[in-house]
Amino acid sequence: MPDPKPILLVGAGLAGSLLAVLLAKQGFPVVVAERRGDPRAKGYVGGRSINLALSVRGVTALQAAGIAEQVLADALPMPGRIMHPDTLTDATGEGTVYQPYSQDPDDAIRSVSRGGLNVALLDAADQTPGVDIRFEHRCTHVDLENATATFDTPQGEVKIEGRVIMGADGAFSAVRQAMQTSDRFDYSQQYLEAGYKELHIPAPADLPDLSKGVSEKFDGYAMDSKGLHIWAGRGGGASMMIALPNPDKSFTCTLFWPYAGTHGFDAVEPLSDKALRLFFDEHYPDTRWLMPTLVEDFRANPTSSLVTVRCRPWRRGRGLILGDAAHAIVPFFGQGMNAAFEDCRVLSEMIAEANGDLESVMDPFWRARVDNANAIADMAIANFVEMREKVADEAFLYHKRVEQAVHAQLGEEMPERATPLYNMVSFTNVPYADALRRGRELDKTIARIASLVPPERAESMDEASWRELIADHARRVLGGQPA
Amino acid sequence: MPDPKPILLVGAGLAGSLLAVLLAKQGFPVVVAERRGDPRAKGYVGGRSINLALSVRGVTALQAAGIAEQVLADALPMPGRIMHPDTLTDATGEGTVYQPYSQDPDDAIRSVSRGGLNVALLDAADQTPGVDIRFEHRCTHVDLENATATFDTPQGEVKIEGRVIMGADGAFSAVRQAMQTSDRFDYSQQYLEAGYKELHIPAPADLPDLSKGVSEKFDGYAMDSKGLHIWAGRGGGASMMIALPNPDKSFTCTLFWPYAGTHGFDAVEPLSDKALRLFFDEHYPDTRWLMPTLVEDFRANPTSSLVTVRCRPWRRGRGLILGDAAHAIVPFFGQGMNAAFEDCRVLSEMIAEANGDLESVMDPFWRARVDNANAIADMAIANFVEMREKVADEAFLYHKRVEQAVHAQLGEEMPERATPLYNMVSFTNVPYADALRRGRELDKTIARIASLVPPERAESMDEASWRELIADHARRVLGGQPA
Repeated sequence: MPDPKPILLVGAGLAGSLLAVLLAKQGFPVVVAERRGDPRAKGYVGGRSINLALSVRGVTALQAAGIAEQVLADALPMPGRIMHPDTLTDATGEGTVYQPYSQDPDDAIRSVSRGGLNVALLDAADQTPGVDIRFEHRCTHVDLENATATFDTPQGEVKIEGRVIMGADGAFSAVRQAMQTSDRFDYSQQYLEAGYKELHIPAPADLPDLSKGVSEKFDGYAMDSKGLHIWAGRGGGASMMIALPNPDKSFTCTLFWPYAGTHGFDAVEPLSDKALRLFFDEHYPDTRWLMPTLVEDFRANPTSSLVTVRCRPWRRGRGLILGDAAHAIVPFFGQGMNAAFEDCRVLSEMIAEANGDLESVMDPFWRARVDNANAIADMAIANFVEMREKVADEAFLYHKRVEQAVHAQLGEEMPERATPLYNMVSFTNVPYADALRRGRELDKTIARIASLVPPERAESMDEASWRELIADHARRVLGGQPA
Repeated sequence: MPDPKPILLVGAGLAGSLLAVLLAKQGFPVVVAERRGDPRAKGYVGGRSINLALSVRGVTALQAAGIAEQVLADALPMPGRIMHPDTLTDATGEGTVYQPYSQDPDDAIRSVSRGGLNVALLDAADQTPGVDIRFEHRCTHVDLENATATFDTPQGEVKIEGRVIMGADGAFSAVRQAMQTSDRFDYSQQYLEAGYKELHIPAPADLPDLSKGVSEKFDGYAMDSKGLHIWAGRGGGASMMIALPNPDKSFTCTLFWPYAGTHGFDAVEPLSDKALRLFFDEHYPDTRWLMPTLVEDFRANPTSSLVTVRCRPWRRGRGLILGDAAHAIVPFFGQGMNAAFEDCRVLSEMIAEANGDLESVMDPFWRARVDNANAIADMAIANFVEMREKVADEAFLYHKRVEQAVHAQLGEEMPERATPLYNMVSFTNVPYADALRRGRELDKTIARIASLVPPERAESMDEASWRELIADHARRVLGGQPA
């Protein structure tokens, strides 16, 4: 019989509400205390969409909670990157370059609405017997030894005691704060020298300068909705913009720029409206017909910072942290939410394997996860460089082409050795640290093959013979024979 | 004319009281707010001595404040390391191995009492016109934009506004805490997997088992006072003990042990008194006659952790941090206090060069210091490995011998290239980052020379010819010619 005291879970965001479902399904009573009000009461979903990229790890965790199908029904698959050169000067939508993420067309990351997903998870939690969600509970004090927390609420101060206390309360976690001031707690917060700002591409009805026929060509969108759009290589390779599609036919765009430099926020923000528009006309020319509200959005939306948080241990006394609270990462691999969801799934599986002996898995859980969290933190930072600079680089594109050819032909035969890093991270549940190690090995192999079969040689061959030659070399190198 | 508002300095420890003197000497009014009571009123100095190693950087800063002579009068020079093998089984004091730090006998680190030094600095601050020290002021809130802080005092809450606010308030700095929660503040705290505990070797009068004549041989001490004593290589190289002399003829000892493992605190602390004594008898045999109160001291004194704190920027709004508040380091290079004192001297010099325009140097100051702080943080961690393991290693000792021979013969001719890392850190004011870079270069040179003239060859030569041969090789390598 489970302990009568509930699990006290701080945070009913994406990770908190998913974890509540997974724990309650195993018979644990769970009290979830959330700082904000109920987003369902506030019409959260009606606002402008902020979207996230859901990948296989996230889907696997949602399956465990039984809500994957429902979430995927509203998700927009993005099977590749769509590159926007800085030379796009007409409004027809021609001139972008498509790079598939994988040879397998089912391998797609999926654009989902953060607000919509949170509501779906809260609904699922409400419908799971044993979950008790309490909104407008701002955590003011945490007692890790006694699994007790104090909250500021509209009804005054409330104290809740749990069997254990779990913090899924985000990058500025109150539960982690309590750990942080205790002895021998390693902690770091590192900011990128770049920030982000959201912009907006509305549905075609609100785009008077869009060429006729574009909307029909793209199923009612102003650009192809089947990909993650990237304006890379701006500001000498330090700056970029991305866009993800929303179900309402709009796109949410995000600028990722350094603060410093001529293409940085510190220099661009003080520009006059006219100079700002000219700046975008020059560097992001297709925003002329895609972003009629560019100047207003640029002024209205905040410039936010990008932080990586690492710490250890994730357990202190009867407290445990997970998700962003334990490992906030930068968004360039689209893995923040997916990593948090994987935490929830792994913790739930470990508790089930221990026949419900929750306390016994708290240390094994974080020890199993911390290296993976550090690996995806590193990969996310590295991917910033890849996205903003290299995706427009010829040598890099050839490297990627070789990599995908190797994957297509040897992926099934030797999945552990021939699956590229991006694919392992986004389209498998291979632990991040293993993915990083194997990905680096494969990178060396690909570099070797690309030097044996350089782009000049590829040009003189037909695609089929080139692929055969690449596969031949790859089989030798990956099979341990001299290439 | 200086701004009528005082500089608000939080912390009247070693760095805070020194900085108060240096600032007031330039005509700035300074209010120093200190959490603890006045140590002079409490008889701080009468207690057991805790000592620190003062090196050239610290002395240089004390000279700027005009109190170096007074401090050095009570300091005990340690011109080398004194190694205690684990085979010392009689009480005569024979069997230790002396390793000089330098060929120059004046190159010594100096054992000073922390309490005595703090009192000397507080007296100097009190005697400097413009310094106003307020004890029992516990900082509860810091407003960096307005250079204002709130303090809990025996007279209730007190608010003080400064021209600027400076935090010299140690590793758990309240001023840094205020910076830490602001955006884009990089911060890390990393603990070693080792802790420390202080022990005590009393004056010979309290050592009944000490052999006769030892005290006379060592000027009234139970061991040679002219060196830093090290019991290294214990626990398979993971553990060690050190001892520094005090003017009252006692020594303060510190165990540096991992928490884990058979020689670690977690395993040794639960031992019975008898087993504990046997453990020391086996691994630190000379403590039998040197530490009659070992078991009591081991039980009574806390086991403390070892943290490295790094952050940036050190300035936010009208706030600035320095010393341990900005860069707490582990004690294995004996540079924590020296680095903090160097901060004070450099800041004071930069203000003087800017003709008192304090605000204009706050950013240049930390930008000039942060890489040096990170360099000594890294070197201090690396020195833990060197002290606990390598000082007992034959190859390492030969490397050191070659290094000192090179330094002795080429140090004056090419000080930038032939001065070993330890000497640059401890016996010069060369910025830490430069010392680290040059030291690594020299290390490569020494390794090369040691391979050209291996220990076997040294054995077959007289000292003078060996030194000549080493110098010959060194001159070629350092002069850029083939060795």
